[in-house]
Amino acid sequence: MISPAIEQLMREHEDTMMIPAENVANVIKEHPLEHALLLLSQAGYSTIPVLDREDHFVGLLSLNDIVKRMLGINGIDTSNLEELTVADVMKTDVPVMRLDAELEDVLHLLVDAAFLPVLDKDGVFRGIMTRREILKAVNYTFHTFERKNQETKLIFHANSSR
Amino acid sequence: MISPAIEQLMREHEDTMMIPAENVANVIKEHPLEHALLLLSQAGYSTIPVLDREDHFVGLLSLNDIVKRMLGINGIDTSNLEELTVADVMKTDVPVMRLDAELEDVLHLLVDAAFLPVLDKDGVFRGIMTRREILKAVNYTFHTFERKNQETKLIFHANSSR
Repeated sequence: MISPAIEQLMREHEDTMMIPAENVANVIKEHPLEHALLLLSQAGYSTIPVLDREDHFVGLLSLNDIVKRMLGINGIDTSNLEELTVADVMKTDVPVMRLDAELEDVLHLLVDAAFLPVLDKDGVFRGIMTRREILKAVNYTFHTFERKNQETKLIFHANSSR
Repeated sequence: MISPAIEQLMREHEDTMMIPAENVANVIKEHPLEHALLLLSQAGYSTIPVLDREDHFVGLLSLNDIVKRMLGINGIDTSNLEELTVADVMKTDVPVMRLDAELEDVLHLLVDAAFLPVLDKDGVFRGIMTRREILKAVNYTFHTFERKNQETKLIFHANSSR
């Protein structure tokens, strides 16, 4: 288990740990792959969530997945993308989390994933939790822990000198 | 500052925090961009360190940087990559760290970078420090901290019951 004192400090960042769906670029699974490549390139992301038309999370699409499909016998050729949709290339076997997931589980899953899609109980995409946001909370926790520790010592000394 | 007790636990992972240069794929700045695209795609990375022929770190090349150069007036065209080298597209204004960097500084830099190139005093590329490896150390620290805390309490109780 995570130290309760540490978990409490981490949870002070809870509100900002998840980037809400409205601030996360996504693609629809029926979209042409070339459209998705343009969107990823313009957004500057390497991986993007894939949704169906009812906002359910269905997978992840990475720039690497698309570029690999462009490799033909004559090198790289974007015409290899014609007639492919996002659904043909996306990865569906990816870790996801619920809104009420335990911090401990989230931290373990983020070792092997740069971000976790956050879903509600109906599988609707609600946002992402990223290594970046977690690291911000870790920085806060590492620094604040020492300050709180010092405050506790001061209280202890004040009491013991009475 | 970071709590010394926490920093000590983080440093127990120090040996594995950096991925050494020999285990990190890289490209040479003079290489043709299409060659780099194939290498990135095959390695499955989205960003890769760029070195000169004497192993000095000179920049980072991302799949996104290359795909953006493929965008022409007629959509995506790999022929736009012809005659471009890695040096034409790489980013050179990127955060790096020294082997003896403070953990506190590393943790702050990793908020805005997925990994940091680690250089020696001559600028030679020695490896990378990643959010992933840091997160492993954070997981260890968060768990071990509680165990050590419990042990301290047990010692305290054993002493006070004498």
